[in-house]
Parts: sequence; C-alpha cells; structure tokens
Amino acid sequence: MLLSNTLFSRLTAGYNESLSRGGIDGQRVAERLSMLSEIGRTADGGVDRPGFSPEEKHAKLLVASWMEEAGLQVREDGAGNVIGRLEGSAVGPAVLSGSHVDSVPNGGNFDGPLGVIAALEVAEAWRETGHQPERPYEVIVFSDEEGSRFGSGLTGSHAMAGELTGERMGSVRDMDGRTFAEVMDAYGTSVADVCSAARDWREAGLFVELHIEQGKKLERAGFAVGAVKGIAGPVWIDVTFEGTAGHAGNTPMDDRRDPLVAASHFVHAVSSLPRKFSETAVATVGRLTVSPNGINVIPQKVELTVDVRDIHEDKRTQLVEAIIGAAQVSATMHDVDVATRQMLSVDPLLVQEDLLADMNAAIEDLGMTPMDLVSGAGHDAMVIGRKVPAAMLFVRSRNGVSHNPAEWTDLNDCVKGIHVLKAFIEKRMED
Amino acid sequence: MLLSNTLFSRLTAGYNESLSRGGIDGQRVAERLSMLSEIGRTADGGVDRPGFSPEEKHAKLLVASWMEEAGLQVREDGAGNVIGRLEGSAVGPAVLSGSHVDSVPNGGNFDGPLGVIAALEVAEAWRETGHQPERPYEVIVFSDEEGSRFGSGLTGSHAMAGELTGERMGSVRDMDGRTFAEVMDAYGTSVADVCSAARDWREAGLFVELHIEQGKKLERAGFAVGAVKGIAGPVWIDVTFEGTAGHAGNTPMDDRRDPLVAASHFVHAVSSLPRKFSETAVATVGRLTVSPNGINVIPQKVELTVDVRDIHEDKRTQLVEAIIGAAQVSATMHDVDVATRQMLSVDPLLVQEDLLADMNAAIEDLGMTPMDLVSGAGHDAMVIGRKVPAAMLFVRSRNGVSHNPAEWTDLNDCVKGIHVLKAFIEKRMED
Repeated sequence: MLLSNTLFSRLTAGYNESLSRGGIDGQRVAERLSMLSEIGRTADGGVDRPGFSPEEKHAKLLVASWMEEAGLQVREDGAGNVIGRLEGSAVGPAVLSGSHVDSVPNGGNFDGPLGVIAALEVAEAWRETGHQPERPYEVIVFSDEEGSRFGSGLTGSHAMAGELTGERMGSVRDMDGRTFAEVMDAYGTSVADVCSAARDWREAGLFVELHIEQGKKLERAGFAVGAVKGIAGPVWIDVTFEGTAGHAGNTPMDDRRDPLVAASHFVHAVSSLPRKFSETAVATVGRLTVSPNGINVIPQKVELTVDVRDIHEDKRTQLVEAIIGAAQVSATMHDVDVATRQMLSVDPLLVQEDLLADMNAAIEDLGMTPMDLVSGAGHDAMVIGRKVPAAMLFVRSRNGVSHNPAEWTDLNDCVKGIHVLKAFIEKRMED
Repeated sequence: MLLSNTLFSRLTAGYNESLSRGGIDGQRVAERLSMLSEIGRTADGGVDRPGFSPEEKHAKLLVASWMEEAGLQVREDGAGNVIGRLEGSAVGPAVLSGSHVDSVPNGGNFDGPLGVIAALEVAEAWRETGHQPERPYEVIVFSDEEGSRFGSGLTGSHAMAGELTGERMGSVRDMDGRTFAEVMDAYGTSVADVCSAARDWREAGLFVELHIEQGKKLERAGFAVGAVKGIAGPVWIDVTFEGTAGHAGNTPMDDRRDPLVAASHFVHAVSSLPRKFSETAVATVGRLTVSPNGINVIPQKVELTVDVRDIHEDKRTQLVEAIIGAAQVSATMHDVDVATRQMLSVDPLLVQEDLLADMNAAIEDLGMTPMDLVSGAGHDAMVIGRKVPAAMLFVRSRNGVSHNPAEWTDLNDCVKGIHVLKAFIEKRMED
C-alpha cells in the first residue's frame, strides 16, 4: 500500500503530533483508517462494504489481526460480531466499546471505522504504557449496522442483544433478492447461529461508542467532541391519501377530491408540529409519490412516509399521535380518504445522568468545553443500551456530511476523541 | 363482425327508435361506433389507436369508405387529415365538421369517433332526404389529436392551420424514441408534407365539432347536450424547488432547507388561487417528484408542474402570474431556491356570441334546455378556431369518465346531439 497516496497522507497532513501521548498514536489511527478505506474503495474515494459482504468480512479480519497484535483475545459470535477481549486486574463486569465496519453504498471512511479503531487504540495505549485495566475490556466490531442491504440494520447488535428470531429473519431479503439465510450461508454462518448469538449480559457493565457526529452542531460551536445525551429512535408512518383522478381541464375546482392538495396541507402541518412537543423532536416527509403523476391529470393517490424522532419516548408518542391526527384533518378538509400505518418503531435511548456527567468531566479534564448532543441517527449503542448502560461520544464532522465519500473528520479531532474515550473508560473502571 | 356481441348491442339496447328521423339513423351511428371500436380494441373493451399508427390509419380508411358511400369526395392532406367534401347548391365558403379517431392508450370509444360519425351522419341524412346543402360541406378526420404519442397533440389541426414547421417537428420523438420524421415515413408521408398541409382558409367559413363532454355538468343538470361557450387553453408551468438534503434524524427542524415543505405550501396555495380570478379557471398540480425520495432523507429537490386553464386569456395570464408569485413566496418562506419555466401556452378560444346563440336556438327548437359549457380540454376546434369561427357541441358523458374504457355516452344522447348539429349547420348555411 502506498500510504503517500492514500487517506493516510490527507489525515496526517495537518496533524498536531503533540496529541500523540499517553500511548495514543495519531499516526497509527490514521494508518488504520487508511487501510480500512482501501477495502471496498469506490472510484470517488468512498467505500462499498455492505453488511455480511466479502468486503465487510475482509475489514473485520484486518481489525481482528490488529486486536491480536494489541494482545486481545479474539472471538467471533454467531452473528459475525468480532470481539477482542483484554482481561482486567480484577474480575467483574466488562466495559465494552466499538462500532461497525460496514458502510452504506459509496459511504464514507469514518462512520463506523473510527469507533472501532478508537476502542482498539485505548487498548493499544494501555499496552504501550504498561497499564492493565481494573476490569475486563472488550473491543467489538458489530455486523451490518447500516441496514442498506436488508433495509433494517443494527443486525449484529440486535443479535448480541438476543432480539432476533428465525421467524423475523426468515422473510428478510437483500436488494438483490437473496434471502437472509442464503447470505448467512455464504458468509459462513446460519440464521440459527445469528439468532442464538445473545451474550450473557451479566458479564458486561457498560458500553461506550465513539462515532462521528453526522451533524453540524460541534462544527458550529467550534468544538472537537461532545457527549451524547440521547439517541432518538425513529417511528416511520406510512400515509396514503386517496381521492378521485380526473381531467385537469374538465373538473371544476369545487368538484375535486385532490389527494395532493390534502397531502400538501398535511406535509406543511407536519413541519410545524415537532417544536410543539419537544426541542429535540424532528419529523420529516422524505418520500412522497403521486399517482398517476400526469401533467394534466388530477392525482388519484398520494403515498408518503413520515420519519418521526425524539430522545423522549413519551414526547415522541404524543407527536406521532398529533401527526396521525393532522393527516385525518387534512383528509377531511379536502374530502379525500386517508389511511395511516406505523411501519417501524425503535425505542429511543436516554443516556444515564452519571454516564453523561463522567463523559463531560473527561472532556473538561482534557481542556475542552462540554456540549450535550442528541443523536438523530440510530447506532449500535442504542440497541446495546437496552441491555447495559450505554454512552456515546461524538467527534466533529466537516459540514455535517455523512453517508458520502466527502465525509471527513480531522485527525486532531479523532485523537482528541480517543483521549476522552480512554479517560472516560478509565474513570468508569475506577468506580 | 358479430354485432350481437359488440358495442353495437350495448348501444342499441335502450335506444328510442323515434329519434331516428329526418334521415338520421341511430342504428347506423351505433354500427359505426361499434366498427371503429374493433380497431385497436383492448382486453377491457377500450382502444389503443395512437396518432399515425396502423390502427389510426385503419380507422381513417374505414371512415373514408363511409364518406364515399355517402357520396362525399374524399381527399387526404399531407398531415394525414382525411376530408370528405359535398358540394353545395351555391358556391361559397364551406362549413366544416369533424373530430379525430386516434385515442390515448386504452382510451374510450366515443372521444373523437362520435364527432366524426356525427359530422358524417349529417351528410347521410341529407342524402337520405334528397337535400343538397346551400353551401359546400366537409367532414374532417384530424390526425393525432390526443398527443399521447408525441406529448403534443392536435397535430392534424395544427398542420391544417399552417402552424407546424420542420424546425419545430425536427426534435420531436415518440415514447419509443422514434423521431417524428421516422413515424411520418412509416405512415407514408413526410415532415415536409405535414408542414405544408395548410389549407386555403378563404374557402372555409365555419368549423363545428361535436364531442363528448368528458365532465359531469350535463349529467348533473339532466341534459343530453350543451353548447360550448369557450375552450380553456392550458398553460403548463414547470416549478423546481431546491433545498439541502440531509439526514432526517440529524438535522434540527430550524436548520432545514426542505424543498418539499416549500412545495407543499405552494401546492396548497395553488388550489385556492383560481377562484380569485375567474369562475371558469382551474389550476392543477398533477405531477410532482421528490429527490432522492428516501424515507429518512430530507429532500434535495422537488419538481412539479402546474396546469392552468381558463377560457378568458387575460384572467388566465393574471392567474399564471399569481401562481409564479406564490412559488416565490413559498420558496422565500422556507429558505429554498425556486425556478419557474413556462413550457406550453395554448390560446383559449371564446366562441362567437352569434354561433353560441344559434347553437342554443337549435337545442331549444328540438325541445331541450340550453346550458352553456366550458371545455377544459383542448380540441381540434380550438386550433381551427384561430382560422375560422368555430363552435362546439357537447354530449353527456356517463359519470364524466373519459380516456378510459369505461367512457360511455348513451345512443339517445348521441342522436339528439346529431339532430342539434344538423339543425345548427343548416341554420348557418341559410344565413
């Protein structure tokens, strides 16, 4: 590999070497990010590493080799999650940290890999400084987090949490029509092994994930890192307005049952609802299709989806109810029919106050200003957080861009984040 | 042809034979509608007869054979328009009547054919009653009226009006990607012949078209026929709202530039504007597409079209200006960009007062109540009306359904319409 011509050279170009201290090595972090970026690399410098693909497996094998170099004991569970374990000086519940190495199609080089490499760098730092942690420590690479292959995502963390069943996975197909069972077989595992990958959660005491922000709040505040106070799980609602198609010229305005006029009233109403319930709530109509979609035809049907998120489950429930109510009002006002259906509901995660306080203390101890963030996107921490207390640390994203080859996080910010992660983990192991 | 199992049997089932009088023969009208319905017949009883297709040509040849039987002199112009001429007892400008025999995909059996058969039936009636009209009379079958093939329509009438140029037709392609020139060649004509098909309009004094209403006003009033006071030409406006795509979870509500929220505000505003300008105006957003159209992605771009119509050109112009202004307001309110472009503008046609009065007199003389209608759809009469005074007569449509195999007009209504058409033509020839 010609590091001179890779992500490595771009990452290290402006690196402040004084950040490499306490066993944490910015050069190693850059080298590892760069090596992962070569697996499934796309023409414009992004990556294609779908969940359970040969590319994802290749990336996991590379991480496993680094784990072994760092002195971790490596195992793989039935869902393809890779776990590197370091024993502590005392027995007790382990601290877990990690993320994923799969990507969306033509995704970026930081979403996932940075969290894995950061968790590993904490173990590297301890090894370099001859420190044995007080408690067991595990670095985890979760399988198939993004969900762009099977339209679901978080497969590895769901499996580890014991939330997958053969019944649920039996009907799943990927975008090429292959069943989940076929893909598991090709990967070297089975649906049965995936669904029995639940770990013994009594052996774990905490999960912490470092991840790029995928938003602009840190950039705007001028901060490198920020603690996550909650992950907003999504509710997806399908809404269908149905009226009466007709000739755009021959149907008087007062004789129409136009579902697009009703849907427009609704979409506009949706945009103003979240702030009535919660400062952190969002609601988005991202997909909308009109039938028959002819220039001179009054539409027959409009189908759309609303993505609703908040970190507060009760507020989110109230908002969902208000949105469904708004759909009914819009339909009644415009004399069309409406049907609503909830397709997906993922529980949000509120980070425990004591974890948030410790994370912010670690940030302050390193001379930075704390800033609490909300994650609008789902993460493995959201799923694992149902089993053990979970925390997250966000690192600044340039322009908030993600799921895109232009995704970028400055190496200085990456390393600052790793210092915070290490300090947080050490603090929690002392308690 | 087994007439017992065709449109013929359905048409004649409830026919009031006493309407067949004065040389007009309802059985013949039904037989001809039924025979045309067999050309390009679809599985559910509609027809596929695209403009300049073998099916449209077959239908024209059948009509030409009927013209010859009726004693008309048949010719075809360079645009494939078929003209059957009957000389009058005196020389002078001719009265023209007709419509088209092409259809939209899986279209109905009355839109077009009824106007051709009605015009021909007037000549049949004169022949049966030994009447020679005072002035020359021409029955016309216009080519490619519907426009579903080339996305334009009214090709035959535009050609006859001398409004087509090689430059304009050079870039036109049909839905299969064939150029207009290739299709003309296959049809047996050429772009040059189509563009030089303009007739000498000094030889014509009036055009009148009988057509199904394609609306519900006559049905609701309980009337068989109604005079058309104007044809509302369409203006088509392309509107594109562009904002900033983003993750539906990670972008706070107050940090969005969501073009779908802006477009929704606009679509709703459009629905309330026409009534502020004219009782007869309509405006429709029929086509709207969202990019990238992902459930959890704030849209980047929304493209839509507005179809605006009125019979009063000045009011329509004011309405178009108001709609473009509304697009700018919606964009500004929601901090997105907007671009508007006028794609099409067809002049509306207001029927001359004296023609409307004569049509209504003919309706009253036949014991029916006059009712003035507006045509929201374009017709050959709209194009020909720029060259000679033009009138239209609408016949009741069941449920207002058109462009659909379910299109239906009762034979009694068809024949009543033909009586009105004949009386109107005879009245205008006397003047």
